[in-house]
Amino acid sequence: MTKVGMIGLGIMGAPMALNLLRGGHELTVWNRDPRKCEPLAAKGATVASTPREVAQACDITFAMVSDPEAARAVALSEDGVVAGLGPGKGYVDVSTIDPESAVVIGEAVKATGATYLEAPVSGSKKPAEDGALIFLCGGDEELYRRAMPMLDEMGKLSVYLGKIGNGAKMKLVVNMIMGTMLTSLCEGMSLADRSGLDLATLLQVLDSGAVANPMFALKGPNLQRDEYPTAFPLKHMQKDMRLALALGEATGQPLPVAAAANEDFIKALADNLADADFSAVYRAVK
Amino acid sequence: MTKVGMIGLGIMGAPMALNLLRGGHELTVWNRDPRKCEPLAAKGATVASTPREVAQACDITFAMVSDPEAARAVALSEDGVVAGLGPGKGYVDVSTIDPESAVVIGEAVKATGATYLEAPVSGSKKPAEDGALIFLCGGDEELYRRAMPMLDEMGKLSVYLGKIGNGAKMKLVVNMIMGTMLTSLCEGMSLADRSGLDLATLLQVLDSGAVANPMFALKGPNLQRDEYPTAFPLKHMQKDMRLALALGEATGQPLPVAAAANEDFIKALADNLADADFSAVYRAVK
Amino acid sequence: MTKVGMIGLGIMGAPMALNLLRGGHELTVWNRDPRKCEPLAAKGATVASTPREVAQACDITFAMVSDPEAARAVALSEDGVVAGLGPGKGYVDVSTIDPESAVVIGEAVKATGATYLEAPVSGSKKPAEDGALIFLCGGDEELYRRAMPMLDEMGKLSVYLGKIGNGAKMKLVVNMIMGTMLTSLCEGMSLADRSGLDLATLLQVLDSGAVANPMFALKGPNLQRDEYPTAFPLKHMQKDMRLALALGEATGQPLPVAAAANEDFIKALADNLADADFSAVYRAVK
Amino acid sequence: MTKVGMIGLGIMGAPMALNLLRGGHELTVWNRDPRKCEPLAAKGATVASTPREVAQACDITFAMVSDPEAARAVALSEDGVVAGLGPGKGYVDVSTIDPESAVVIGEAVKATGATYLEAPVSGSKKPAEDGALIFLCGGDEELYRRAMPMLDEMGKLSVYLGKIGNGAKMKLVVNMIMGTMLTSLCEGMSLADRSGLDLATLLQVLDSGAVANPMFALKGPNLQRDEYPTAFPLKHMQKDMRLALALGEATGQPLPVAAAANEDFIKALADNLADADFSAVYRAVK
Repeated sequence: MTKVGMIGLGIMGAPMALNLLRGGHELTVWNRDPRKCEPLAAKGATVASTPREVAQACDITFAMVSDPEAARAVALSEDGVVAGLGPGKGYVDVSTIDPESAVVIGEAVKATGATYLEAPVSGSKKPAEDGALIFLCGGDEELYRRAMPMLDEMGKLSVYLGKIGNGAKMKLVVNMIMGTMLTSLCEGMSLADRSGLDLATLLQVLDSGAVANPMFALKGPNLQRDEYPTAFPLKHMQKDMRLALALGEATGQPLPVAAAANEDFIKALADNLADADFSAVYRAVK
Repeated sequence: MTKVGMIGLGIMGAPMALNLLRGGHELTVWNRDPRKCEPLAAKGATVASTPREVAQACDITFAMVSDPEAARAVALSEDGVVAGLGPGKGYVDVSTIDPESAVVIGEAVKATGATYLEAPVSGSKKPAEDGALIFLCGGDEELYRRAMPMLDEMGKLSVYLGKIGNGAKMKLVVNMIMGTMLTSLCEGMSLADRSGLDLATLLQVLDSGAVANPMFALKGPNLQRDEYPTAFPLKHMQKDMRLALALGEATGQPLPVAAAANEDFIKALADNLADADFSAVYRAVK
Repeated sequence: MTKVGMIGLGIMGAPMALNLLRGGHELTVWNRDPRKCEPLAAKGATVASTPREVAQACDITFAMVSDPEAARAVALSEDGVVAGLGPGKGYVDVSTIDPESAVVIGEAVKATGATYLEAPVSGSKKPAEDGALIFLCGGDEELYRRAMPMLDEMGKLSVYLGKIGNGAKMKLVVNMIMGTMLTSLCEGMSLADRSGLDLATLLQVLDSGAVANPMFALKGPNLQRDEYPTAFPLKHMQKDMRLALALGEATGQPLPVAAAANEDFIKALADNLADADFSAVYRAVK
Repeated sequence: MTKVGMIGLGIMGAPMALNLLRGGHELTVWNRDPRKCEPLAAKGATVASTPREVAQACDITFAMVSDPEAARAVALSEDGVVAGLGPGKGYVDVSTIDPESAVVIGEAVKATGATYLEAPVSGSKKPAEDGALIFLCGGDEELYRRAMPMLDEMGKLSVYLGKIGNGAKMKLVVNMIMGTMLTSLCEGMSLADRSGLDLATLLQVLDSGAVANPMFALKGPNLQRDEYPTAFPLKHMQKDMRLALALGEATGQPLPVAAAANEDFIKALADNLADADFSAVYRAVK
């Protein structure tokens, strides 16, 4: 069976590693703060002392770190993943990173004879625990096929999108729709409220009809209570809206509806809601 | 068992009447073009020669006609419903009409000693056939309770929203969200397409995640094929967007995202897509 | 010399009548509250007791009243202008009214054998006093030529736009641009302020460059002081924005920039600024 | 009299240098393509062989180059301006550059003991020839005062805005207003056209009223003729709109009206109008 590595054991990485263990894989892990490795070691994972050691020990190494800087560091530093790669090995970065970083890391990986896949996830903490993530993959198609069994243990859907960068772009498109839809829900709830309509009833009607969706079902009652427990921080959603608008600019696609929604997120940022859940845009709308 | 009437046997009214027959009710029907009564007569319905006769024969009379003018005509003309009403009877208008017409008809009904309920539906042809409509009810609460068994035969959800006019307002809120969401899907598909991403894969990703909803699942593949079979005409959606924006104006609620989406629908109208499905707004977006 | 009448001696009508007197015309006036006729009578105007008397006494009768209802009343009531008109006479309504009212009044005027011109003005109190109004004329072209000397006494520009209704439409186009430009100034001032730039310097730069215009020069310093002395009420500007957007809808012209500006005016209305100057939209923007 | 240098003799720099000569200054010039120095040499200017030589020869050196890369090159390369600066000398960069480049160049200048001023201009070719530019200055205030006589020869207004970067920010605010106003003119002209109103008359009305401004007077007739001779390229205006929106994001100022206008410029870019005048956004609007 494939020897598998996981680098990064944060809110997302830890449950993903656990799902790999459950899948019966021989698992090697590494985390910047080594204490987070202990629960996994207790369940049978081997703890490595550097990302390089993980790559050396494994057929396929996954990384789930917090931002592009961390992704570059775990891959490219002296004791990084790349230093431990070679022909026959694969590196799958499931972190959300910009296309430039993905290309730079991918080139370094390929120079060792190994193969590279970017596979940013759609989904947050709960889907990570439930093995219900969605992987948006760009890069080496053969590695995509080899990694599929592990992606299936951690997620419910993996799609192959072609060249490196396409995974990141798909994520922007999806998050742009998500951010606009949530803003539209906020406009609808605000309008209903000012019109004397009951909000719980509105949510019930929405949940019974053609636009019923898990996000409205999850966030709607929170909006009603003016509570915004953070699943996806507003500042990250606004960043994705901005990047999606920039992608529209680069490709010549006007996006006036998303642009209007983005201005609401900017207003919410100015109202000190950067670290609240992105659904706190409700405060800027109403 | 309650004697029930149905006035208007069009695309929506005919299957609704059929569901009432299936529920075991003694049903009296009327339609402007009497030939449309024949299939129901063949299944046991009594055919009346005027709306007044329907109201005289029934405990509760429903009407499903195409616009406010028709709703006023079947209710208020010489041989209209109101002429056949009296104490103990109820009139439930499930047509989509403006609040002013609802108030005028409601006053006339109440003057006879009968009770009135506006109950515009959310849902189109298929849900009408499946008994899966949603009724948004405003007006007499006791009549709402009495009509509930019949509403349950024709629909999957009925909500009571308070005074007359609230049903129409709730429908505007729901349709505003629907129209904005569809426009956002169009922006996302256009952006994906220009970015070199596969649209079928985008739809698969959307259908697996937090924003998965029946409308995207139904319309998405049509958009891909540039086909817009009419379930809900674009001109009606644009009218509802305009009325929702006017409700925002009247209540002091800015709706910049819906306003941006509305401009896309206006562009689509100018491109001669008034009678296509509202999803043809895709042509204006891309 | 042409005998001239002026109906309506409010903030606009009184200085306009004064300018007609200065032009040497024999002037007959009427006002609902007759006390407002006194200053003009003191300067030589004849005071009539009904609009009909004005029309009977004059070759050309002007009306400057506050809204479509007043315009219909002074024209069409028993003692109204139409009752005093006949072949060879002309009626020029310089009030701002909707196209429908203009058509109704115009038909009634023409039925007497007289001619009709709608001529809504662009400009407020100060231009009225200075004889610097702009008249946007639709209707009878021969009357337009006959009225030109008087229009020149009251204004600095009169344009002929063709059929009845075109004057009102031109006014909507001009006011839509005006409202959007003011909102853009507000966005620029807010952005400058948050960026640590001096607002007086911004206004000086704007006033020296390609976009220098009297409105920025007049309103800019007021915005800086957060003062909004009413020259044109915000509620009227929002109404014109809404009507311009409706004209866009009717003619198939998307207007996304004006639509975004309109949402700011709606927000300002909700902030109880309806009767402040339209420049108070600054409060909604910043 | 102050010895003055001018680096960069393009469309803007050449007439600016000529105005400095007319002011009676001893002028040293440099241009990448030395042939462009000849007309100025013929009028008495000294031609230097490197930017460093210009700085060495002059009390105050001006630079007008095309973009931030060129600005960094002429200032910071081996034979650049900074290599020729020292205590008592001043460097005034009137190019349009980003705040980061301005800070980097400014630091390098100050390290030599010289002083630095960023002074991006508002205005294009014609104002450069007429000595009617506007200078938006940030940086050393004493140098601003010393450079004032030269700025007055080249422009009609110079404002001091404080620290380095503020000149660039002010320019973004002004251009954002300019871009939005032009888009609003396009919406107004499109609406007038579809409503059957004469466009020349609309322009005449606008030019006579409260919003009359040189830009409408200049561009309006071009829009009517569907001609867009490039004074300010559309791609540069779109870039400034994008940077202004980013400044809004950074400072927490929502700018929904400018964001809507920006989407029109993006549409125009996609229609291959990048190098046309920014007024070609008319094609995207109508």
